[in-house]
Amino acid sequence: MATEATADDASDAPEAYETLLERARRWNTIGSAAGVLAWDQQVMMPEGGTPARSKQLSSLSSVRHDMLTDDETAELLETLADSDLTDEQAAAVREIRRAHERAAAVPVELVEEISEASSEALPAWEEAKATDDFDHFAPHLERHVRLKREYAEAIDPDSDPYEVLFADYEPCLSIERAEAILTELRETLVPMIEAIRESDADLAVDTFEGTFPTDDQEALSREALELVGYDFSRGRLDVSSHPFTSGNQFDCRVTTRFDESDPLGAIGSTIHEFGHAQYNLGLPQEHWGTPLGESRDLSVHESQSRLWENHVGRSKPFWELFLPTVKERFPQVADATVEDAYEAANQVYEDNLIRVEADELTYHLHIIIRFEIERDLVRGDLTVEDVPEVWNDKYEEYLGIRPETDAEGCLQDIHWSHGNFGYFPTYSLGSVMAAQLYAAADEAIDDLDDAIAAGDFDPLHEWLAENVHRHGSRYETNELVEEATGEPYTADAFIDYVEAKYGELYDLS
Amino acid sequence: MATEATADDASDAPEAYETLLERARRWNTIGSAAGVLAWDQQVMMPEGGTPARSKQLSSLSSVRHDMLTDDETAELLETLADSDLTDEQAAAVREIRRAHERAAAVPVELVEEISEASSEALPAWEEAKATDDFDHFAPHLERHVRLKREYAEAIDPDSDPYEVLFADYEPCLSIERAEAILTELRETLVPMIEAIRESDADLAVDTFEGTFPTDDQEALSREALELVGYDFSRGRLDVSSHPFTSGNQFDCRVTTRFDESDPLGAIGSTIHEFGHAQYNLGLPQEHWGTPLGESRDLSVHESQSRLWENHVGRSKPFWELFLPTVKERFPQVADATVEDAYEAANQVYEDNLIRVEADELTYHLHIIIRFEIERDLVRGDLTVEDVPEVWNDKYEEYLGIRPETDAEGCLQDIHWSHGNFGYFPTYSLGSVMAAQLYAAADEAIDDLDDAIAAGDFDPLHEWLAENVHRHGSRYETNELVEEATGEPYTADAFIDYVEAKYGELYDLS
Repeated sequence: MATEATADDASDAPEAYETLLERARRWNTIGSAAGVLAWDQQVMMPEGGTPARSKQLSSLSSVRHDMLTDDETAELLETLADSDLTDEQAAAVREIRRAHERAAAVPVELVEEISEASSEALPAWEEAKATDDFDHFAPHLERHVRLKREYAEAIDPDSDPYEVLFADYEPCLSIERAEAILTELRETLVPMIEAIRESDADLAVDTFEGTFPTDDQEALSREALELVGYDFSRGRLDVSSHPFTSGNQFDCRVTTRFDESDPLGAIGSTIHEFGHAQYNLGLPQEHWGTPLGESRDLSVHESQSRLWENHVGRSKPFWELFLPTVKERFPQVADATVEDAYEAANQVYEDNLIRVEADELTYHLHIIIRFEIERDLVRGDLTVEDVPEVWNDKYEEYLGIRPETDAEGCLQDIHWSHGNFGYFPTYSLGSVMAAQLYAAADEAIDDLDDAIAAGDFDPLHEWLAENVHRHGSRYETNELVEEATGEPYTADAFIDYVEAKYGELYDLS
Repeated sequence: MATEATADDASDAPEAYETLLERARRWNTIGSAAGVLAWDQQVMMPEGGTPARSKQLSSLSSVRHDMLTDDETAELLETLADSDLTDEQAAAVREIRRAHERAAAVPVELVEEISEASSEALPAWEEAKATDDFDHFAPHLERHVRLKREYAEAIDPDSDPYEVLFADYEPCLSIERAEAILTELRETLVPMIEAIRESDADLAVDTFEGTFPTDDQEALSREALELVGYDFSRGRLDVSSHPFTSGNQFDCRVTTRFDESDPLGAIGSTIHEFGHAQYNLGLPQEHWGTPLGESRDLSVHESQSRLWENHVGRSKPFWELFLPTVKERFPQVADATVEDAYEAANQVYEDNLIRVEADELTYHLHIIIRFEIERDLVRGDLTVEDVPEVWNDKYEEYLGIRPETDAEGCLQDIHWSHGNFGYFPTYSLGSVMAAQLYAAADEAIDDLDDAIAAGDFDPLHEWLAENVHRHGSRYETNELVEEATGEPYTADAFIDYVEAKYGELYDLS
């Protein structure tokens, strides 16, 4: 349990603790400044600005790295190793220590080589994808595997290198638990999707067919954000080619994108990013710049976006609330019922090869396939040249479809061109966590469905703020889930959720 | 003359020079990152972001200050004091040395106190202006005068404190020359404005009367920027409450503002900011982050904006070119002639008390009045309590009008609430320089008027790039003007320009 004293309470904190926190505030503030520059780069910057922006970001990154790894930080951490700290103070020090040790372990030259490798891999990946030529990208992937193994070795030569890389994105969740969850997911979803493929259920999949002008979709996205309670005095909605969220507890902005033939895509993206933004906006302002005011890692972040996207935005109560607004913007759907909208929003795309266009179920198999392949690459159990065939085999095995090209196969996503191995699993882990958190919220809140249908999101906001957001990085991932839900973090709630929901939708026995 | 070797040419540069430049690139890159944050704050940031943004900017400012003033920088400068440098290298070192010495001379506590005094003075000034209560602002102005005198004393106890403050904005132009120019301006303009007041000339001042919707004005501003040659792949046009320019040679953005009853205001502002942007965009990209790739100071920057705003944007050839575009957007001016537009754009507002609404002539008396008062305050020749009366007396003496309230008198501008003494004169000094530069360009370019009327701005862009932009901070201010025009920097060209132009417009003998 947390003590009553806050970690910023100077009265009983050792001086070294205060000094360390003041330094952390400085480097995190610089990190957050870099976040503004990255947002600007994707949303506002004219193309000519790229060379200056790259230099600005790398200067900020160096300054931040220098502060995090310098002797003064090391000495303060050493002093604090034996200090008497409250639980919150100890948590803050634990987080800073972890970040310091990882950053200090990796030689600067290796960091620079990885950054250079990414810069070179990106255009190669773009060309390989455009020309469906995996061989053009293969040497870059090879180089990334080699460099990232070196990187893992520098951090911890005694551990499984994939585990070390995974910890860049999810530092306080064991790889065993992560793998167990992903395996359970695969074992549940593969037969479920097969059953859906064979089901005779006739969903109202054409509810949102037609053309939906971008301007109206943008207005509708704003209305959706207002409905769910986005605070525009601390945020913005803009457009970018890949939707993302950027910011802190004072100013957290979302982006979305529009496809004239797919209004559900923009709505889903917008609500997804809203979930990310609510997490950041719910972090304690007084702890900004310290671990107690920073979000937990990627799985937890993704749990917040998926909770809003799937458990709220794809629910019947939400469509009861939202459909009238949609009809005002788009009279062409005037005849749709709530059931129609719900079915359209939850249809399973049986023949889709592309992750970013996937539904709530098949999505995870796209993730799991890439996870299994990158894990085996990093562990040395798979060679780069075998990736395309293994990829296609797994699609056939798990999803019953086989890509005809590598462009719509293993080249579809950008992440490997950055060498980001270990990132993908957090997408699925977050969705699983979302189900567990939502089930606990639903249990704790009287008539949550009715509240949502009535547009009253306050109880859900309060539950999430109280049980997740306000803790910052106070708890490690498992601990946070257990504090919030009373249960260890498992796939159980997710499996219950999809079995009930898709069982009903597709008349599965 | 510049040597052929560039300052970045490593072949014959001492190692200390390369090291110093690398450090300068780092701190200037951080400074330019802060510029992006400041732009965002004024153009994009939601209001809730203020606390985080203030911290981000102050962290970046500290980091930059620490690098600029640390022992390594001091040692490198010492080493280079006796090194054999090319002219360009010597210029780069001169600029870095000046910045280092000023920053190192001022105690950090004093910098912080000034920053705090500004934070407190700003809301007090806002309230004082809103309630027309100078006494509410007076103690803050008093404090700024005291702190800025201390600041000047720390930098150079043997010099006139106003001279030292002026050098914050214009470090390489002597205060004597500046004062001589401002005095000549006053002596020319006061009788000229009196004569205009008595003139019977009947200008087409109502050419742009009516309502001009904001959206159309924005479209027209974009068209104006396209006409004069703004490179939108390296810039943007946005809206902010005070128009400004922000950026570097890769990405330089302008803002403007709209008043539905005053389309000339937006056009003038937009072209003014374009002039600032062209200067930054014309700086050598290879020298970005070093003094050879940074703009000269405020007077030179203002010369570029005023050259475009006044010598181009208020000229007959420009209106020959631009009026058809204006008429397409605003059919209500379909009957206006080029002469009408020219007269409307150049009318002298005889009864205007507000600087930011002033014309090309009376503008300078607004500047000179504030300059004379702030100079006397800083020198100890005037007390804060006497400011309102002295202000009003000067308006009566120079402009023939007397403010009835302090809100439209000495409280009208924000600058003193920041303690920015020494900044104002650069506005007029820049306009004077613009006239001298434009006269030289006009002399050098065949048929410049015809080129402008035909929409061919290339010769003017090339002349400015060659004679001003590409030099960065290679030359000191006077030297730059003399290199570009063959004459020392004086008010002569400006006086010739206004006497000819306004003599004709107002039938002055």
